[in-house]
Amino acid sequence: MSLEPLLNPRSIAMIGASDNAGRIGGMPLELLSRFGYAGDVYPVNPKYTEVFGYRCYAQVEDLPAVPDLAVLAIGARDVTAMLRRCHAVGIRAAVVYAAGFAEEGEAGAQLQQELEQFCAQSGMQVAGPNCMGLANLNTRAFTAFAAIFKTASMQSGQGCVSVLTQSGNVCSALYGLVRAHDLPVSHFINTGNEATVDFARYLEYLAEDPQTEIVLGYVEQIRDGRRFIEACRRFQAQGKVLVVLKAGVTEKGAVAVQSHTSALAGDQQIYDAAFRDLNVIAADDFAQMANIAMLAGLAHRTAGERIGVVTMSGALGAILTDRFIQAGLQLPDLPDDVQAQLRQGVPSYGMVSNPVDVTGNIVNDPQFITQVLQALAVTPALDVVVINAPGYMLDRMAQPLIDVVREYPRLFVAIDTGNANSRQRLREAGVAVFDDLGHAVRALGPFLTWQARRAQGTGFAEDASQDRAGLDPKPHSLQNEPRVAGDDVCITVPGLPCHEGDARRYLAGFGLPDRKVHIARSSQDAAALAERLGVPLAMKVVSADLAHKTEAGGVLLDIVGGQSAARAYDRILDNCRSYQPQASIAGVMVSPMQQGVAELLVGATRDPVFGPVLTVALGGIMTEIYRDTAHALLPITHSQALQLLRSLKAFALLDGFRGRPRADVDATAQAMVAVGQAFLAGQPILEQIEINPLLVREAGQGVAMLDALLIGGTPAPVPIPVQPSGVQA
Amino acid sequence: MSLEPLLNPRSIAMIGASDNAGRIGGMPLELLSRFGYAGDVYPVNPKYTEVFGYRCYAQVEDLPAVPDLAVLAIGARDVTAMLRRCHAVGIRAAVVYAAGFAEEGEAGAQLQQELEQFCAQSGMQVAGPNCMGLANLNTRAFTAFAAIFKTASMQSGQGCVSVLTQSGNVCSALYGLVRAHDLPVSHFINTGNEATVDFARYLEYLAEDPQTEIVLGYVEQIRDGRRFIEACRRFQAQGKVLVVLKAGVTEKGAVAVQSHTSALAGDQQIYDAAFRDLNVIAADDFAQMANIAMLAGLAHRTAGERIGVVTMSGALGAILTDRFIQAGLQLPDLPDDVQAQLRQGVPSYGMVSNPVDVTGNIVNDPQFITQVLQALAVTPALDVVVINAPGYMLDRMAQPLIDVVREYPRLFVAIDTGNANSRQRLREAGVAVFDDLGHAVRALGPFLTWQARRAQGTGFAEDASQDRAGLDPKPHSLQNEPRVAGDDVCITVPGLPCHEGDARRYLAGFGLPDRKVHIARSSQDAAALAERLGVPLAMKVVSADLAHKTEAGGVLLDIVGGQSAARAYDRILDNCRSYQPQASIAGVMVSPMQQGVAELLVGATRDPVFGPVLTVALGGIMTEIYRDTAHALLPITHSQALQLLRSLKAFALLDGFRGRPRADVDATAQAMVAVGQAFLAGQPILEQIEINPLLVREAGQGVAMLDALLIGGTPAPVPIPVQPSGVQA
Repeated sequence: MSLEPLLNPRSIAMIGASDNAGRIGGMPLELLSRFGYAGDVYPVNPKYTEVFGYRCYAQVEDLPAVPDLAVLAIGARDVTAMLRRCHAVGIRAAVVYAAGFAEEGEAGAQLQQELEQFCAQSGMQVAGPNCMGLANLNTRAFTAFAAIFKTASMQSGQGCVSVLTQSGNVCSALYGLVRAHDLPVSHFINTGNEATVDFARYLEYLAEDPQTEIVLGYVEQIRDGRRFIEACRRFQAQGKVLVVLKAGVTEKGAVAVQSHTSALAGDQQIYDAAFRDLNVIAADDFAQMANIAMLAGLAHRTAGERIGVVTMSGALGAILTDRFIQAGLQLPDLPDDVQAQLRQGVPSYGMVSNPVDVTGNIVNDPQFITQVLQALAVTPALDVVVINAPGYMLDRMAQPLIDVVREYPRLFVAIDTGNANSRQRLREAGVAVFDDLGHAVRALGPFLTWQARRAQGTGFAEDASQDRAGLDPKPHSLQNEPRVAGDDVCITVPGLPCHEGDARRYLAGFGLPDRKVHIARSSQDAAALAERLGVPLAMKVVSADLAHKTEAGGVLLDIVGGQSAARAYDRILDNCRSYQPQASIAGVMVSPMQQGVAELLVGATRDPVFGPVLTVALGGIMTEIYRDTAHALLPITHSQALQLLRSLKAFALLDGFRGRPRADVDATAQAMVAVGQAFLAGQPILEQIEINPLLVREAGQGVAMLDALLIGGTPAPVPIPVQPSGVQA
Repeated sequence: MSLEPLLNPRSIAMIGASDNAGRIGGMPLELLSRFGYAGDVYPVNPKYTEVFGYRCYAQVEDLPAVPDLAVLAIGARDVTAMLRRCHAVGIRAAVVYAAGFAEEGEAGAQLQQELEQFCAQSGMQVAGPNCMGLANLNTRAFTAFAAIFKTASMQSGQGCVSVLTQSGNVCSALYGLVRAHDLPVSHFINTGNEATVDFARYLEYLAEDPQTEIVLGYVEQIRDGRRFIEACRRFQAQGKVLVVLKAGVTEKGAVAVQSHTSALAGDQQIYDAAFRDLNVIAADDFAQMANIAMLAGLAHRTAGERIGVVTMSGALGAILTDRFIQAGLQLPDLPDDVQAQLRQGVPSYGMVSNPVDVTGNIVNDPQFITQVLQALAVTPALDVVVINAPGYMLDRMAQPLIDVVREYPRLFVAIDTGNANSRQRLREAGVAVFDDLGHAVRALGPFLTWQARRAQGTGFAEDASQDRAGLDPKPHSLQNEPRVAGDDVCITVPGLPCHEGDARRYLAGFGLPDRKVHIARSSQDAAALAERLGVPLAMKVVSADLAHKTEAGGVLLDIVGGQSAARAYDRILDNCRSYQPQASIAGVMVSPMQQGVAELLVGATRDPVFGPVLTVALGGIMTEIYRDTAHALLPITHSQALQLLRSLKAFALLDGFRGRPRADVDATAQAMVAVGQAFLAGQPILEQIEINPLLVREAGQGVAMLDALLIGGTPAPVPIPVQPSGVQA
């Protein structure tokens, strides 16, 4: 059901109307009246006959027509009853201001449950409760009691920036800042308790809203992760910009969020990964958000992460270089021909590489300035041009700059360290103007990364969605395929959690290279296998009941010869039986010792918010200490897997660090994709896959699962498909 | 010689005077005249008889009195000749504007050398060349041609903020921002090429300048590190605040710095360590610097890293918590009694722990607001109180806030997300007021850390300087003590670089625990030692010529029994001789294999800017990959060594990570201090000490040098003192 009645109502009833513009039942009426909302307005309150020029009705049943939307400025305890009455007269949507619901103890939770039940039964759309309300700035449909509308300047034209927040105060603060930047707003939305309409639902609406191009969001908790993901994909597909400030990114901040609204802040690492994969710009503060919105208004201009910096001062060039590099952007050297061209006018004490220091004298030569700007507007080495100048120098460059910006599609940004008179002219011509170096860097960093991701099409929406579409979400592999007894694996699987042999076979079915697994079921077996294999061996207990095999003494390494293998077999069984006497032990896996360049952890789990997620990390204690772990929403493509791998600091180890051999990065990415597919195919039974370690060999030599674990949530017996062994033994 | 004539001149001659305020020879004269400089002003130029109301003289020899300072607004080639003439008439100091010196090729370098030679001979103090000049805002002695003086508002009272930069543009930009923040300035100093007076020299002056309390500095290169260190110590001792923006912190930024002024940006890690040790606030941009200066004006108030946050909104509380925690600050929970006190007035949907959300309603109760602020002003759990409020709410709280701030010494900060009318009143009462959350966080983070360091007295100036004073800078240990032949070490030392046995003995002399070193000089020796020691052994070649012993095949581990030891001896010698046939080999060190909790690298080197520096890192490849290395200026105290160790991310490994034993952190810190002392005692001969690895055992079990290396710069034979073996074997 559409949110039109909430966000674009043609008529509004205010229940609990007041003639005092300082009260919540009066303020929206005063705003509707003052700013000339064209729809019908029906104040409801038996105390008045007229409020702010609108005829007032005694009760909702008296209204002369059925309004699109009812706004309830009444106490929590009366809300559901009033919604019933509204519904009875045919009203389909309501805004509920009242606090005292889920955010306030058991009694409140009870009230909210009643409200939710009524909405579910009636199909009524309710914004809130415990919200400041909504406003459509394009139609002037004010249903929010936000004092900021009285003090911030009202826009004249159509707005394209929507503000969507889970906090009323943040909604007001953001609106105020956006207006202070003279950006026009389309929707003001404070979601409140989100009893029936949540953040993702509004986002979905805004993705299709023809007015909205940019959304500035504030979230403490995303309730419907799947809907959020889909909405973000729509944003990407349409080139709309979504900027989100997420509270609770630190442990202490998460505690504050929880004590504030009982929202669970969620796993911040997964939020970070999801925002990156969905190309959502994660913001830190309101000024940064307003500045990004300002840049996003220029999203039609071409831009990316390669910045050309122009200054009138070598020092400023060096400072900006430091800050932009630290913000994750690049300053490529300019091509020789461009440098030669610049050198024709830049004095010897200036700089022509990048940063370009044209020196202060040059601004007196508008013709040469135009040449410089043109050269930077066309060189394929750059995506964006940033000009830093004291106000009076920027003024002297303004006309050449405006001429070049009009002619070329590249994004130009000016940092005015003064009070340039030309600011407004520059902005109108399409130049982003900042008055603070720090603000410029903090807005450009994430915005240009957004642009680059959009241009590269590496976002989730582009390619991985196709993979997802191609995957059957049913766990067919776990349920439908007949189980075939393997060569030397013939263990009955009691169900998930299954043991390692089963896990390997299941994963091999998705292309993860597995070797033949040898399982000894007696010390004689072990001795015979050792003699046959004739190389140093690793021996490991096979048991679905022992999650921590090393701790149980169930793993022994570097075993040579039949006699040692037999002794090792007995020791492993002794160890495991004394560690956990009830453990069912299927045997001992015997395999040749393997060597590689590195050992990784590759796993998949289900995040409560975002669903299936892949994890990759270097194995071992150091990765834990340095928290060097990367996550991605599933499914992922091969190229996304490569990017994820490269995002690890430890990637250097796979990449020939200090003369070590390069690892088979390609096979590693393949394995990551396969783990993702195996996990998705196992839904909803599979809860976790963990390959730890995945041995990564030299380039061209592939990878190997040294250990594999599946954890599932169902006790039902699950057949395991057996497929051909993997490519690498 | 004092810089008084430059920075506080009683009379000024302007050589190359102009009657055009737009020219460099005219602008300072116009400023001196307009702002009423009280000293004598002597324009010099044969073209004029009067300039800006001052009588103009044809040549410097015509002046009626000897001015304190001559300002040279003439071309580079005429400068030294003019300085000679100035000196001849008795002028002791000059400012040289002209560019075209060291920053411009060989011809310029030649000119600068002449200028420097003349200054050295004559003792004349010269600011610049290639500088914008100076200004004493308290006496209105303008000798800078900075257009910003015309546009920025002139202060009325005495100034306490000095701006000291190596770039004229940065000097102007900073001055403009500081004035826009309405902070009064004492000195404006652009150092230029620093031919004779460098950054540290000005800093030294400002440390003693009774007007200056705060210095905002910009550096590309510190030329005199020792003087800089001493000046910073003076700043610390007097509670003055030094904020420095250093350019070239990234590789690309360093290239820009170098192509700008041929300055070498230096080792950024060492700059970071030095700034931390000297309690210099490292800044990122100008707005941050101006904001820190604003806070520094309140440095007399008590403050530290433990923040109490008060908001009218749970969401804002959570956001501020995230940002402050990320900025390295703390938000301790409030004590129970304080929470109980707040709960008396804060509604149930508010928060009373920290952040405190008093909710919007509460601002209408000034009495309760006063109680809240008082409680936060006195609780020993906090150092600082930060209040975030929309403008109109801040206005309602203003009077209670002002009353509390007047009564208690604790620092109070307001973040006004609106346009509070009370801003000015609050500032006058001693409240720091920000209009941007991001600006507040970025200024408070470093400033409060500065406060905490100052309060803890952990800065360099406090304690380590005493250690330094107690150390004889002469390399007495290396030169003066007689060498005693050791038990089984009798190798002639050809000089530094010396071999490991010598290195160990030298270091043991400073208290580094060393065990008896056994050196085998034949395979029979090795076998006998192995039989006698009876434990698994490590064997390592002893040679001053082989720096990379492992690569040379000079290290073998886990050797058991006499026969194996004899074979290992032969193999090591074979390996090393084929690796480097000319290497002089003193024997093979034989020692029991040792186990510990972790292996560290502890080293000392001489930084070209800051001198002796200690380095500590976890040994091995992972530390390199994660760049987890800590540095400190030498000497360091035991508590500084502990702090340095704790600053490593890998410290967790020493601290009982995941059930591992805790390491002997105390003995590690002792070893670090000892390495520092050994390095300082070895100056100027010693160039490097590296103990890699230093084995760290469980708590109480001490540390052991598994390898030790000294590198020295002199070829002269150096006797090595032999001292008793260390405490731990």
